[in-house]
Amino acid sequence: MSVRDFTPDEASVADQLTKLKAAAGSHSPSLLTLREQLPHLDIAVDACFISNPYATQLFLDHLQRELIDTGAIRDVLEFYPSQNEVIAELLASQLGIGPESLFVGNGAIEIIQALIHNVARRRVLVTLPTFSSYYEFAAGRVEVAFHTLSKDDEFRLDPEEYLARVREVEPDMVVLINPNNPDGSYLPHGDLLLILDGLPPEVTAVVDESFIHFAFEDLNLDIRSVIPECEHHPNLVVVKSMSKDFGIAGIRAGYAVMHPDRVGDLLRNGYLWNSNGLAEYFFRLYCRADFLESYDLVRKQYILETQLFYRQLAKVPGTRTYPSMANFALVEILDGVSADLVTQHLLVRHGVYVRTCSDKIGLDGEFLRVASRGLRDNQRIIDALGDVLGTG
Amino acid sequence: MSVRDFTPDEASVADQLTKLKAAAGSHSPSLLTLREQLPHLDIAVDACFISNPYATQLFLDHLQRELIDTGAIRDVLEFYPSQNEVIAELLASQLGIGPESLFVGNGAIEIIQALIHNVARRRVLVTLPTFSSYYEFAAGRVEVAFHTLSKDDEFRLDPEEYLARVREVEPDMVVLINPNNPDGSYLPHGDLLLILDGLPPEVTAVVDESFIHFAFEDLNLDIRSVIPECEHHPNLVVVKSMSKDFGIAGIRAGYAVMHPDRVGDLLRNGYLWNSNGLAEYFFRLYCRADFLESYDLVRKQYILETQLFYRQLAKVPGTRTYPSMANFALVEILDGVSADLVTQHLLVRHGVYVRTCSDKIGLDGEFLRVASRGLRDNQRIIDALGDVLGTG
Repeated sequence: MSVRDFTPDEASVADQLTKLKAAAGSHSPSLLTLREQLPHLDIAVDACFISNPYATQLFLDHLQRELIDTGAIRDVLEFYPSQNEVIAELLASQLGIGPESLFVGNGAIEIIQALIHNVARRRVLVTLPTFSSYYEFAAGRVEVAFHTLSKDDEFRLDPEEYLARVREVEPDMVVLINPNNPDGSYLPHGDLLLILDGLPPEVTAVVDESFIHFAFEDLNLDIRSVIPECEHHPNLVVVKSMSKDFGIAGIRAGYAVMHPDRVGDLLRNGYLWNSNGLAEYFFRLYCRADFLESYDLVRKQYILETQLFYRQLAKVPGTRTYPSMANFALVEILDGVSADLVTQHLLVRHGVYVRTCSDKIGLDGEFLRVASRGLRDNQRIIDALGDVLGTG
Repeated sequence: MSVRDFTPDEASVADQLTKLKAAAGSHSPSLLTLREQLPHLDIAVDACFISNPYATQLFLDHLQRELIDTGAIRDVLEFYPSQNEVIAELLASQLGIGPESLFVGNGAIEIIQALIHNVARRRVLVTLPTFSSYYEFAAGRVEVAFHTLSKDDEFRLDPEEYLARVREVEPDMVVLINPNNPDGSYLPHGDLLLILDGLPPEVTAVVDESFIHFAFEDLNLDIRSVIPECEHHPNLVVVKSMSKDFGIAGIRAGYAVMHPDRVGDLLRNGYLWNSNGLAEYFFRLYCRADFLESYDLVRKQYILETQLFYRQLAKVPGTRTYPSMANFALVEILDGVSADLVTQHLLVRHGVYVRTCSDKIGLDGEFLRVASRGLRDNQRIIDALGDVLGTG
C-alpha cells in the first residue's frame, strides 16, 4: 500500500485542514466552515456527517408543500414556538408515554449537557470509544471513569464484564450509546435489559438511542428501543437525537424519556422556549401517521443500502471495516498509514470528507469513521479510498 | 363605560381562554396553541406578540431569495450548524468587540437561564414590573429582591433611588431591562451610565437590551446600547434578544456581551451547538452591510408608526396609556373593568389578541400590554378597544 505525496497546493490545503480540525476541538469542522475557509475545495461527499439523506429529502418535501408553498413559514419563523411542555405533550402521545416523562431538547446535545450538569453527582462511567461530550461536559464537575471496548472483540460489549466494571468503579451514572458512536457496535435488546436489571438501583443509566433507527435484530428491520423500560426502571434515561435518522441536524431537535421527577427538576428552572419553530413543525410531523409511514420506507431503504456499503468497504485492501448497526462504520487503516493523512488525501484529492478518529480516546490504531450517504455517494467513497490507499 | 355580556358561545370560548392562559404560566399561550385549541376563533391581530412585522418580511424576503429559490435551504437544515464559538467570532466583528466577550444563545431566554443559574450566587435585584423569567428561574436557587416602579411616576426609574435600594438590599446581581418589559419605560443612556458607575464593583449588572432598537433619544432615532461599556465594567452583562427587533422569535437567536472569563465559564462545559441552521443564517445576514441598511429603514418606519399608535391609544376613553420607548405600551383600564375581561372580549369579538397583565407582579391596577403591529393592524386594535369599552 502506498499513499503518494501531496503536490505543493494540496499540501497547503492539508495544512489548513489540520488547523481547522484543531480549532473544532474533539468534533469536526462543519461543512459550512470548510466551505468558507477553503472556498476552492470541492466537497463532493460529506461522509463525516452521519444522517439519512433520504429522510432529509422527505422532510424538505413536506416543508416545501406545507410551509413554503402556502406561506405558513412566516408564522413558524415570526412567532414564538410553543413552550417546552406543550411540545412534550404532543410528542408523548406519539411515543406512548406520559408527557410528564418527556423532556424536549434543543438537540440531544442540550439534553446531554443538562444530564451531566444536573443529574450526575459524583462519577460517570463512559464506554470507550465514545461521543466526546459525555466526558467533556463532565470536566471539572464530576469524575469520569471508562469501560474500554476492544477492537479484538469488534467493540462488542459483554454485559457481565460491564456489570463487573460498574461494581468496581461505583459510578452514580453510566452512559451507553446504542449503537455506539463511533464504532457502530450494537448491544442486543436482551443484553441491554440484562444490564438495566443488573445495575445497582441508585445508578442512573443513560441510554443514548440516537442511532437506534438504523439497528435491527431481524429482517423486519424493526426498531428496538428501551423507552418502554422507563416505566419499570426509574433510573433509566433514554436520550434521542432526531438529527441522524431524520436528517435534520440544522433544526436541532432531540428528546429524552426519564422519570417525571427528573423532568420536573429540569423544567422547574428553565428550558422554556428551547425548541425553535421548525423543530416544533418537525415534532408535529413526527406525530402524523402519513409522515411516519413514508419515513419508515426511507429508513429501511437506507438501512439496506448502508449494510451493502459496509460489505463493499470490507473489501478495500489495506483496511479493516468493523461490524456496525449504525449509519457509519469504523474503518481501520492497516500497515502504518495515519488516519489523518488518509482523511486529508480523501478530501483534497477526491472531495470526500470522512471523520478521522485520531482524536478519539480509547481507540488503539488508525481509524476513519465513514458515514453511509446513499448509493451513489457511497460508491464515490469506496473508489476514493481505494485510490488514496493505492489499491483502487 | 360598559362591557356588554358574552353570548353563551362567547362565554364558552372565554372560559377555554382562561384555562389556556393558566396552563401557560406567567406567559401567554402561543398563537399556534390558540389556533389549535380554539380552531373557530379567528385571530386577526396578535398584539400580544412584540415584534417588528416589517423586519420579519425583510428576513423572509432574504430567506426566499437566498435559501429557498437556490435550494441552499437543504444544507442549512440537513447539516450541523457551526459551533457556538464560530458564530460568536463572526458576530463579534459586527458588534465591534472581541469574540471572547460574546456568548451566543438559543434565544435570550437561554442566556437568562444561564446567567441566573451560573452567575447569580446569592441575591438578585429585579425591577418590577418585569419579565417573569428573571425571578422564576431564580426560584429555589438564589433570593430575589424587588425594586418597584410606580405608575404614578409613569414607571420611570430614578438612578439615585435605585442605587439606594441596591445599598439596602445588597444583591450580587441586578437586572435592568431597558426599555423595560412590560411597561416600556426607558432609562436614558446617561442615567444608565450613572447607575453602572455607582454600583458596588462586586455586583453583576445584567442590562437586557432586547427592546433597545425601538428606543431613541433624538429624532435621528439612533440606538444607544451600553455594549461599549463592557470594556470598562467587567461586571456588566448586556443581554440581547433578536426576536423583537428582527421579528424572528421562531428562529431563537440571542446573544450576550460580558467579560471573557464569564463567557469561558459558560462555554467550558456546554452550549456546543445551541444555534440552529436558520439562526446561523440570520447571524450571517446580520453581519452584512446590505441587510443592515435595509433593516435600519424598516426599524425607523416601525418606530414612527409605533409612536403614532401610542398617541392614538392615549385618546381611547376609559383608559390610560403610559409613555413607552418599546414596541408595546401599557394601557390601564380605568373604572374597575378587569383586564382579563377586556382581553377576552377583544379576542372573542374582534380577534385582537393582547396581553393581560393580571398575572404581572408589582402592577397595581388593571393593565393590558398592547404591541404595535403595523399601521392597519394598529387601527384595528384601537377600533376594537373602543368598541369593547363601549366608547368606540
